[in-house]
Parts: sequence; C-alpha cells; structure tokens
Amino acid sequence: MINGSKVLDHPIRWAMVGGGKGSQIGYIHRSAALRDNNFQLVAGAFDINPERGMAFAAELGVAPDRCYPDYKTMFEEEAKREDGIEAVSIATPNGMHYTVCKAALEAGLHVVCEKPLCFTSEEAEELVALAKEKNRVVGVTYGYSGHQMIQQARQMIQHGDLGDIRVINMSFAFGGYNYKIEETNPAAKWRFDPTKAGPSFALGDVGTHPLFIIEAMIPDMKIDNLMCTKDSFVEGRELEDNAFVIMRLKGSKSVQEGAKVYCWASSINCGARHGHKIRVVGSKASIEWDDERPNQMTYEIEGEPVRTLERGAGYLYPEARVEDRIGGGHAEGLFEAWANLYRRFAVAMDAANNGEEYGDFWYPNVESGAQGVKWIEKCVESANNGACWVDYE
Amino acid sequence: MINGSKVLDHPIRWAMVGGGKGSQIGYIHRSAALRDNNFQLVAGAFDINPERGMAFAAELGVAPDRCYPDYKTMFEEEAKREDGIEAVSIATPNGMHYTVCKAALEAGLHVVCEKPLCFTSEEAEELVALAKEKNRVVGVTYGYSGHQMIQQARQMIQHGDLGDIRVINMSFAFGGYNYKIEETNPAAKWRFDPTKAGPSFALGDVGTHPLFIIEAMIPDMKIDNLMCTKDSFVEGRELEDNAFVIMRLKGSKSVQEGAKVYCWASSINCGARHGHKIRVVGSKASIEWDDERPNQMTYEIEGEPVRTLERGAGYLYPEARVEDRIGGGHAEGLFEAWANLYRRFAVAMDAANNGEEYGDFWYPNVESGAQGVKWIEKCVESANNGACWVDYE
Amino acid sequence: MINGSKVLDHPIRWAMVGGGKGSQIGYIHRSAALRDNNFQLVAGAFDINPERGMAFAAELGVAPDRCYPDYKTMFEEEAKREDGIEAVSIATPNGMHYTVCKAALEAGLHVVCEKPLCFTSEEAEELVALAKEKNRVVGVTYGYSGHQMIQQARQMIQHGDLGDIRVINMSFAFGGYNYKIEETNPAAKWRFDPTKAGPSFALGDVGTHPLFIIEAMIPDMKIDNLMCTKDSFVEGRELEDNAFVIMRLKGSKSVQEGAKVYCWASSINCGARHGHKIRVVGSKASIEWDDERPNQMTYEIEGEPVRTLERGAGYLYPEARVEDRIGGGHAEGLFEAWANLYRRFAVAMDAANNGEEYGDFWYPNVESGAQGVKWIEKCVESANNGACWVDYE
Amino acid sequence: MINGSKVLDHPIRWAMVGGGKGSQIGYIHRSAALRDNNFQLVAGAFDINPERGMAFAAELGVAPDRCYPDYKTMFEEEAKREDGIEAVSIATPNGMHYTVCKAALEAGLHVVCEKPLCFTSEEAEELVALAKEKNRVVGVTYGYSGHQMIQQARQMIQHGDLGDIRVINMSFAFGGYNYKIEETNPAAKWRFDPTKAGPSFALGDVGTHPLFIIEAMIPDMKIDNLMCTKDSFVEGRELEDNAFVIMRLKGSKSVQEGAKVYCWASSINCGARHGHKIRVVGSKASIEWDDERPNQMTYEIEGEPVRTLERGAGYLYPEARVEDRIGGGHAEGLFEAWANLYRRFAVAMDAANNGEEYGDFWYPNVESGAQGVKWIEKCVESANNGACWVDYE
Repeated sequence: MINGSKVLDHPIRWAMVGGGKGSQIGYIHRSAALRDNNFQLVAGAFDINPERGMAFAAELGVAPDRCYPDYKTMFEEEAKREDGIEAVSIATPNGMHYTVCKAALEAGLHVVCEKPLCFTSEEAEELVALAKEKNRVVGVTYGYSGHQMIQQARQMIQHGDLGDIRVINMSFAFGGYNYKIEETNPAAKWRFDPTKAGPSFALGDVGTHPLFIIEAMIPDMKIDNLMCTKDSFVEGRELEDNAFVIMRLKGSKSVQEGAKVYCWASSINCGARHGHKIRVVGSKASIEWDDERPNQMTYEIEGEPVRTLERGAGYLYPEARVEDRIGGGHAEGLFEAWANLYRRFAVAMDAANNGEEYGDFWYPNVESGAQGVKWIEKCVESANNGACWVDYE
Repeated sequence: MINGSKVLDHPIRWAMVGGGKGSQIGYIHRSAALRDNNFQLVAGAFDINPERGMAFAAELGVAPDRCYPDYKTMFEEEAKREDGIEAVSIATPNGMHYTVCKAALEAGLHVVCEKPLCFTSEEAEELVALAKEKNRVVGVTYGYSGHQMIQQARQMIQHGDLGDIRVINMSFAFGGYNYKIEETNPAAKWRFDPTKAGPSFALGDVGTHPLFIIEAMIPDMKIDNLMCTKDSFVEGRELEDNAFVIMRLKGSKSVQEGAKVYCWASSINCGARHGHKIRVVGSKASIEWDDERPNQMTYEIEGEPVRTLERGAGYLYPEARVEDRIGGGHAEGLFEAWANLYRRFAVAMDAANNGEEYGDFWYPNVESGAQGVKWIEKCVESANNGACWVDYE
Repeated sequence: MINGSKVLDHPIRWAMVGGGKGSQIGYIHRSAALRDNNFQLVAGAFDINPERGMAFAAELGVAPDRCYPDYKTMFEEEAKREDGIEAVSIATPNGMHYTVCKAALEAGLHVVCEKPLCFTSEEAEELVALAKEKNRVVGVTYGYSGHQMIQQARQMIQHGDLGDIRVINMSFAFGGYNYKIEETNPAAKWRFDPTKAGPSFALGDVGTHPLFIIEAMIPDMKIDNLMCTKDSFVEGRELEDNAFVIMRLKGSKSVQEGAKVYCWASSINCGARHGHKIRVVGSKASIEWDDERPNQMTYEIEGEPVRTLERGAGYLYPEARVEDRIGGGHAEGLFEAWANLYRRFAVAMDAANNGEEYGDFWYPNVESGAQGVKWIEKCVESANNGACWVDYE
Repeated sequence: MINGSKVLDHPIRWAMVGGGKGSQIGYIHRSAALRDNNFQLVAGAFDINPERGMAFAAELGVAPDRCYPDYKTMFEEEAKREDGIEAVSIATPNGMHYTVCKAALEAGLHVVCEKPLCFTSEEAEELVALAKEKNRVVGVTYGYSGHQMIQQARQMIQHGDLGDIRVINMSFAFGGYNYKIEETNPAAKWRFDPTKAGPSFALGDVGTHPLFIIEAMIPDMKIDNLMCTKDSFVEGRELEDNAFVIMRLKGSKSVQEGAKVYCWASSINCGARHGHKIRVVGSKASIEWDDERPNQMTYEIEGEPVRTLERGAGYLYPEARVEDRIGGGHAEGLFEAWANLYRRFAVAMDAANNGEEYGDFWYPNVESGAQGVKWIEKCVESANNGACWVDYE
C-alpha cells in the first residue's frame, strides 16, 4: 500500500508557470503535488504581473530570487543552478500550453500540463516526438481519471467482468453557460474566442474528460470513425456550446467490433453542475460512474441486482485500493484524484531520471494529450461537414 | 377533479382481440379500461385457441355467445346486435395490428391498438384517413405517457418554465436481450423476425415510447432530419438490438431552431430494467423523468437547487393533478397511467358518438401511431445508408 | 402464478359502508376488490346523505334497491335475500369501525376494515373472539403490506438471509401538519379530537403501518417492552403530532434476544411526503424499503456491495413473484398492493365459506388489527408516565 | 474568500504525538495542517518505536534532532529552543489523550486532539480550566463538522429558514463489527477494552460525531435530559456495539421547548459504511445531510419540492462558500473538511498568541470535547439504570 506515503527518496524540484493568487487550478496543482512530499515547490513564474507574482511566491515560501517574471527567464536561470528545477507544471491560458510545454521539454524539464496540450495534431505530434527524444515525462491533468473507481473499472474490464464492450453512453454536460455569460464574466469570454480557446469550446473544455476516462478504463480501445454535431445555442457564439458525438470502435481484446460510443458535451445543460457520467455496457455487465459522487460506482450484471461499489471496500481489485488514503466510507474528492496522478507523475519522472521504466501503472501522458487534440479536430471536421462520418486514423 | 370517477353516463360496450389467459398486456388493458366503469367488457376474441378463449371469457364474465373464435366473426356478429360492441382493443402480435385495426374501423368501431399501429407509413396513412372518414377514435397504448408527470411536463413547457427547448437526451435501453435469448425463449423469437416484428426491433419495441412522450410534452415539436446507427450485437440477429438516433428539430413556439435530440434504444443494456429516461433541456431549466420512478420528476432551473417534483403535490399544474387517484406520497404505477389514457379514450369515443369535439385534452391517437411508424422507417433508412442524415418530411 | 387472474369460481357478493363520492379511500377499496373479479359490488351504504349515496350507487352500477341509508338497514335487508351480501368493507370515520365491524360479524358477514380496527384492546379482543366464533374473515387494510417487496423481505428473513435480527430502524414521518391545519381544513380537524380519532394521532394514523409491516416480515416477532415519548409541537393540539417509540424484542427463531426497534411516527416532518421507511438489520445483512419507491429494496450483506432488488426480477423468492402483474421494470403502485391483499381476503373468505383452511399465505387479519390497537395503548401509557418502560404482555 | 490561501504571515511551528508510518489518522492530520502553509511540521514523537519514528521523520522532512522518543522529552527539549514548537497534534490511542493534552497545555502549547478528549467529565473540566488559564487553543478533530454544508446548515438555522427546531433524527451506524472482529483484528481489539477505549464503544467512537455536528449547526442547543439503551449484540463484548439515545432539548432561540433528538450509534448496522446521516426538522422546513455524499444537502420546505443544495453554489450563504476550494460540482472530501478546521485552528492560535479574539467563526474546541465526554457519561448512566431518563445538567 503506497497510500499517503512518500514514494521518492528525494522530492522532485518543481516549479509552476501560471496558477497565481486566486487561481483555483493553481491551488489544486500545488495541493496535489505537495501532498505526499514527492515534489518541492522551489521556483515559479506565477503571474504575468511580476509584483503580484512575487508577493504570492512569498506566501508559498518560494525564495524571491527564484520567482521569475516569465517562463523563459525561469527555464534559463534555473538551468544555471545545480539545484535547478527538474519539473514544471503549466497552468496558463490554453493558448500558451504548446509554447511553454515545448520550451520546457527543450530545457530538459519534465512537464505537467493542463489540457488541452495544444491546439493542433501537428503540434501534438511535435510534443510527443520531443518528449520521446528528451526522455521526459509529460503528464496531462485529466484529473478525474485519478479517482480510485477508474482503477476499479479498468481492472474489471481487463479481467473480463463486463464481457465484450458494446456500448458506451457518456456525457460531460453542465449548465451555467445557458445565457450570454461571456458578456459579463471575463473568465468566460476567452472560451468562445478561437484564437485563445482553440477550435472548440464544449468538446475541448469538457468532452475530452470522459474521452480520456474511457481510454483509461479500456486501454485497447481504438476509434474507427466518428460523427459529430455541434451547435451554438446562445446567440453570437463563435464556438459550440453543445455537441453530440457518435463513435464506432474497432474490435479489440475487450471491445466488440463495431461497438458504439455516444458522448454529449455541453455547457448549456441547465441545472447540471458537471453532468459527467459514464456508462460502459458489456456483453455481461455494465458499470456506471458519476464524477460528482466519485466514491461510488454501480456494477450491473444482467439478471442480478444492481450493486453499488464503494471506494475503499475490501471487495475491490487491489489496484483500486492501493491509493486509498482514508478508508472506505470517508469521502475522498477531486484533490485526492489529482494527488494520485501527481504521485504517478513523480514515480515516472524519477524512473526517467534514472533511465528506468516506471513499472506497472498508467498516467495521462503526452499521447493522451495528443489523442484529445486529435479527437477535437476530427469532431470539428465532421461537424463542419454536415455531421458526416469521418475516419479516425 | 375527475380522478377515480366515472366520466360517462353509460359505459362503452367494449371487446378485446387477443390478450387471453396469461397475457400481461391483456390484463393491463382490462384493468385500465374497467377501472372507472367507462367501459364494459361484453365480447371478445381472446385466443387463437377457441376452447381456451371460451374458458377465459367465462372467467371474465363474458357471455359464451359473445366469445368468438376470431375477430372477423366478432365484428360481423356484433354488428347484428342492437347492443353490439362500440369499441375494440387489439392486443395481438404486431403483425396483425394493421389488419384488425382496419377491419374494426370499417366495421364502425372505435379502436384501442397496441403499438406499432402497423409496419409501413402507407398503411398508417390509410388508417389515419379511414379513422377520419369514419369519425372513429383510434387510441394507441403508449402507456407511459399516461403518467401524471407527463402532464406536468407538458404544462411546464407550454407555460415557458423551461424557456426554449435546446436539447433532449433520452433512452429506453433495457438489458435482458444481451445473449441469444431467442434460442430458448419463444416469446423473444418473433421479435427478431422481420415478417412478424416489422423492420426493426429496438427502435420499434422501445424507441417509440420516449419519442411519443416528448411529442406529448411538446405538441409543437417538428423533426427536421435525423440520423441513426443500428447494430445487432448478438450474433445472428436479423434486426437491431441497439440503436442511436440523433434528430434535428425545427424551430417552433417552444423549440429553438436546430434543437437536438438524442435517443438510445437498446435491448442489450445490461443491468437496466427499462432505462427509460427523458431529459429535456431548455434555455432556462431542465426536467428529467424516469419511468421506473414515475411519481417523481426533477426540475432544474439553472443557478438554483435541483427540485424534485412529486406526483399529487399542490404545487403542480392543475392538469397534472386532475388525474390524481390516491394522493401525493402514495405510489401510483403503470396501471393508473393506462387507466388515465383509457379514460381519455372513453371521453373521446363518447364525443365522437355524439358528434362533438372532445375538448381540451390529448391522447395518443392514430396520428401518434403513424408518427411512430414513420420514425422507424426514417431511422432504418438512415442506418441502412451508412448512418447518413435523412430529411424527415 | 396467480397474478392478474381471478382466483375464485364465483365472485363474493360484496358491499361497502362509507367510501362515497369523492372519497379516495373508497375508490381504492373498490379498485382493489374489483380488480380481479373476485368480488362483485352488489350493495352499499355509501353515504350519510342518502340521496347522494343513491346517485353514487347508480354511478357504480349498484341497483337502487340495494343502496341503503345506513349499515344496519343494509345488514338486515341483505340478510333476507338469497343473494345477499357475503362481505362488507368499512370505510367510515374511525369512531364507527368497531360498531360496524361488530354488527357485520354478528350478521355473519366477512369484513374488510380500515385501521384502526377499534379504539381499545377490550373492543379488539371482543372482535377477535367474535370473528373466531363466527368463523368469519376480518381483513385490515394495512395496504402497504401488500407490496411484493414485503413478501420478499418475509422470505429472506425466514430463509435466514439476514441472520438474526438485531435492530430495526423505521419511520412513518410525514410533513403537512406542521402548522395548525385543523383550523382551516375540516378533514384534519377530527384527527386531533380524541372522541373521534381515539387516544392518539400520529401513532395510530401512521405509526401502526410500519409496525404491521415488520410483523408481516417477521411473523415470530414478539415485543417484550417499550417506551414512548409523544409531543404536540403545534400549539393547542390534544393529541400528539410526533412520537418516538423504542421497543425491546424477545428472542425467537429469527430475532436475537433483546433486539431493539426504533419507530418515529410524525406528522410534522417538514418536506417528507410519507417518510415511511423500514430498515431491518440482521447479524449478516440488512434490508431497507421505502413505500414511496415500493418497487425497490436494498439488500446489504456486510462486506459486499449494496444490492438494489427490483420487483418482478427473476432472482426474487417465488412468493415475491407470484403477485407480479405487469413484469419487472414496470412500476406497480399502491393499487396493486391493495389488490394483492383483497385477493388474499377473497381466498380466505372462500375457504371460510367452505369450512377449509386457506393455505400457505398471510394477510392482515383481526389479530393484526388488535395488535395495532394494543400497541397504541402501550405507547400512550408509556408517554403519559414520563416515557417510562412498559411491559408489553 | 480565504479558500486555498494561506491566512497567517508565519506558519505555526507544529509537532505531532503519534500518527506514525501507516497511520491514516496521522496522514489526514498532516494533510490538513500543511495544506495551506499555516502550519510547519518541525518536530514529532511519532512512534513508540523510536527507530521507526526516526525513519518516518526523515520521510516527512523533520530534522533528526527534533524527532523525539516520547512526548515528554519533546515538550521539554522544544521548550529550550527559541524556535520551539508552538502547537502539537495528538493522534495517540484514546487512553493517552488526556495525559498528553494536559502536559501540552502545561508546556504552554496549543493542542489539536483526537476525540475523545478524555474519559471523564472531571478530566474534561480540568482541561477546560487549564486551556483557559494558559490561554491556549484546544482544537478537537470532529472532522466531519468541517464540511461546507455544515456551515450552510448553521446559517440557515440562524437565519430562521427552518423555523423553530422540533425534531432531529440522526445516526452514525456502520456495519463491519457485526461479528467478533476483535478476535482476529488487533486494531479492533482495544475498542472493546474499557481500560483503553473508555466507558463506551459505539457512543464514543461514532455517536459523538453527529452530536457535535448538531451543536455546530445549532449553537444555542441545550440538552434537558436523555435516555439511552445500549447493547452488545456480538457475544462477549464488554462495551456496547449498538445504542439508541433520545434527548429532550430546552427551548432557545432556534429550538422549540421540548424538541426531541434521536441518535442511533452502531457498529453492527450491516451493509452501511458510515450511516452518518442527520435530519433536522423545523416548523417550516427540514434539512438532511449524509457524510458519505457531503457535497449535497436536501432542503425541504413544507409544501414545496425538495431541493438539493450543492456545495460551492452561488445560492448558498457566504459562510458556506468562503471555504470553497475547487468550485461547485467538483467533489470535495474529508481532507478538505479537516483542512478547513485546521485553518480555523491556525487563526485561533495566532489570535491567542497575539492576545486577540479570533473573530466571527467557530471550531470544535475544548468545550466541544468536554461536551462529548459528558454526553457519553450521561448515556452510560441511563443505559446502566434500565434506560431511564437522566437530567443533563
């Protein structure tokens, strides 16, 4: 059991780009990374306003001389130090992810990057190649995938508990953007600006989350082709606020040839907070999971009563229990899910540092990030061509 | 309040075709029709085995001389009596619906018919025309639409509580046919035989139920076009056991132009009993309803806590309370939903008999039945052409 | 399978006292009794207003000469007929139950009586003795006990699936009487008048329902002693609107010596419609049931995932499936629960008529009614003596 | 908004007694204390095995010379340092809480202590007096009370949203001790040994949690008297594994005179993980909360639909939003609840250091700890005297 224990002898020297004062996403990065002493926050370029950044660095206990006005300076200056940073997390607006990630890899740093990794498959492939060349870890914060029940689902599918997968019905469909929020809320404005948000809103902002979760649950899943409809229901939006995607899967070890996936990505689903639900239907049984009640998952063997599995319970697969931090019944939340990913990032980084393989586990990596970018591209291509079918490869 | 009261002075003289001993569907027809003394069961052609039919008629208190070996004889003989039947319910295998319905209308009878009304739009149009010509009622037993919460939804939408409808996410996706059940269960076998079941299984067997429910909730809804994928996941099936449909709606009083509907019809959704759930998303609020807990419906105004509406409660619209039979909190079920429809059938039949309009309510009528047939045709057309988009009109 | 089938060769000739026009309770009696053709409504004293009663009788198809101004006349006149009534249902105000029930038994009639059967144990014992002497059936409409899941619970306990019962936590705690409703609502007024409602409100009105359900689930259950607190939280009430009861059980086949039962009976539990929930905890497993979602029951084996059992499912005990009327997944409601009881009443009445035992099933009988009366007395005795412990026998 | 921000200029120098390698409770203390940089872990007596303690200190980054073999040495040695510890958390077996807490206060340290604070009211009063005399903070880790919904409940009650409180129905009733687990599981064994666990098991282990939560929700709540039954359903146990408590409350600002509270504390409630649920019923509305889904709370105004409140939502009271760390919809868990308490402990400690009042918030303090001890004593007194009523003051 590695839960709640430090896993590295020496913490990784770590910095952040972005995620300054008041940023919730910056806060969760730090909470997750520092949770188990596997990372040490030693530097940062937290804010585009250097003064504000400096004040925030002081709050965080980062030495003033290691608080930088921008990421370039940080990568340069830190490279000169013997105790310079080894890894950096990128929590900037989406439009900078690619540039900062590339610069970090070129500087020989491990990276943890918010999704989307970048805006085009071309960029994504470049990052994949660069990460490989440099032998550096790129972790992508598909944070919901760190919940223990995702591990349980992955093991169940691998052990054949569901039989062959036939249908997946999933959504990340929240409300809140059901009116022209971007007129009054600056934090929402950039999301509908293609130059800042990339080629999509709902698909990229939320749709890639369930996509990655099913990839994590079903590592052998391969998309054959897909179709997508997207709409901007609120007037004047350049990017979609609602999309439906249907995918056809190829046959593989755990997937029946021709299996179908439906994904609903939305920001105008009134009343839903996340609406992030995943149902995987196999030939024997189904599972269903909802990120808002992440400690439970239903397991439905056809012909038997529906079972509600509980995080931390003794009947789960060992892989779903190893990250248990506080015992079944107690509610773990998103912070623990992220901390689980950061722990895996640490182990992978450490292994790369030592020229070793990191062993028998998975994390959302640079290919996972690239997959999300490609999926958005394909969806947009379909939607822009009359919601036609588009080959995936 | 008409709940639990007889609404006609004289009960309608009524017969059944099919629905014999041991038939659950026959039982619910009788329970619903006889519940409030608006129908009187006076004749029947209950069984293809005349002897068995006769024994069953006796159980039901139907006079032996009005128990017939087949529907033709019944229509002929009853026509000769002054106290002959006025209405007939058809609970035969699907393949007979069209023929019996046509014969009944030609005999001047009102009809209550199981869905599907028939197998082709051509047949459907014929029945629509015939019903009009004869001024006879054809009620179709989309039984779930009789639940009181459907009335509430209809009123909410009409009153603008949801704003403009943008997205509908719905399913009737049950398990149980996840293996080759038709090899061992004769009751399942005909369902995959196109000559007996028509051109589809999942779409027709279950998909038309949520379709009709949203038609009942949104009378001004118009489908613009649709696409459909269908699959036979269990080997050797001639008809689909799973289908996805996406529809584009036209703009109308309560629907935003381009609104999208997703429908999942399945018989291989392991672990689900019905999986019959409907979520309607408007510009202001959403509602969600599940036929397995029909006494509740969620009402989700964006920015406010989710509310759970309860059948029978004082805060519902009057139209949703008028059919209350036993008071909020008490569970009403499918039998009451059917009884509500049969009550409306009775009122409509009585009005037609008297050459009157039946007033300010709705019931699933011959056009509703025709709409289901057309929808299946369009879905099949799309699915058979590479899941392409098909215009609806 | 007897579901939805007539069980008697000849329906029992049946009448009602009370339950006139607009009465929901009258409606459910008739719906339940007539559902399967085991009873035939041939007479009635429906209303204290004879004219209104006569009009209502006509609606129900009861012959005018068998519609009586009062129960005494009805019992007398019907006794003179060869085809006179064999059974009567009593749906009058509580204060008349004892008198009418006694008169009916003395007239040699079977009885179905609303709870409470009467107001004192003395009266109850008299009715028990009279029913025995006359060999007549007295069914008491603890209607919720007719739900199929109660049968399942009974079988599970009998088969030892729960192990020894240790704790029961139950409630029937609704809202709605949280303010002085009796000032404006005449239907509520008599409930707080001891001369009309008997010695209690909440305990008698709702508390006896879960009490009878656990008696039905655990036929060998014996109360050793109990204590009760009762309160009138709304000012000026003579009878309690809230009560807590704790019971100690004797050891028996399925109950551990000293098992404890908690019961919360309330009419001031804001926001709850029924709040009628029963949790039975055994040494191996627990079950939990809620009358507002009667088609489901949780089954919780310690150390295993919680299972949700569904009405009509193949994995239930046969006794829980025999009364299935419409197939699992479809919602059955309170009307079916009552119809199940009325079917059993019919079988028991028929057996008594023939001088036979009625076989291997149970129904809420005169002893069940007497038990409720005694329980209220004991609770009141405790509450009136400082909520002290009171021996039950 | 103080969420996710450091609140003190300088972190408090902090140590732990107990909570060594593998201890989940030690882990949650550290996670919570260190989350926001308000505490710095500088010393510890983590383990009764000094070698193991030293190795663990290294993992945590505690200097070897500040890792002590026992608490006495730690308090002595740290007192000699200018940068000595200011606060200590106690995560030892229950039997040591009193002694270590007293020693810490005498050493002039702030204390965070696991519940129970001690075993007798005499001890508790001594600690209360000592804390006052020394002007030191004693925080008690009733961790569930740190959930944001408890703040919401407290504000709702204070603002009169529920009206006068009349009834509370609550439980902390888990399974897992339904068999003689103490024979095979050493971690369970001490819990039934009065010399190590104090005078009760279920009441003290779990019952005091909901008790404190209602105290936090209703600061003006005063118990008038109570009665308690307790049982050891598993053979051979010296302490109870199940208890029922009924309390009578005094009238106060938000409580109706004579309000009743029911509490079920159990370790034999098969199938339940925590079973920690609290329902508060007022004259206008009720609220209900379950620690296993802590991000939701129902709000039930009589006569209106039940509302489900969601953590982080804009419609909550500001006090319930100020501790929001990651935005509504995202699941926060027990770690955040604890971190919220530790943040308040930090502010209170800082204020005490500066001789100031700590302002307008609450935390579970030494009186809260003392109240739990007293409640257990009174419950045991009642249970040992035939479950009689016992005055509380």
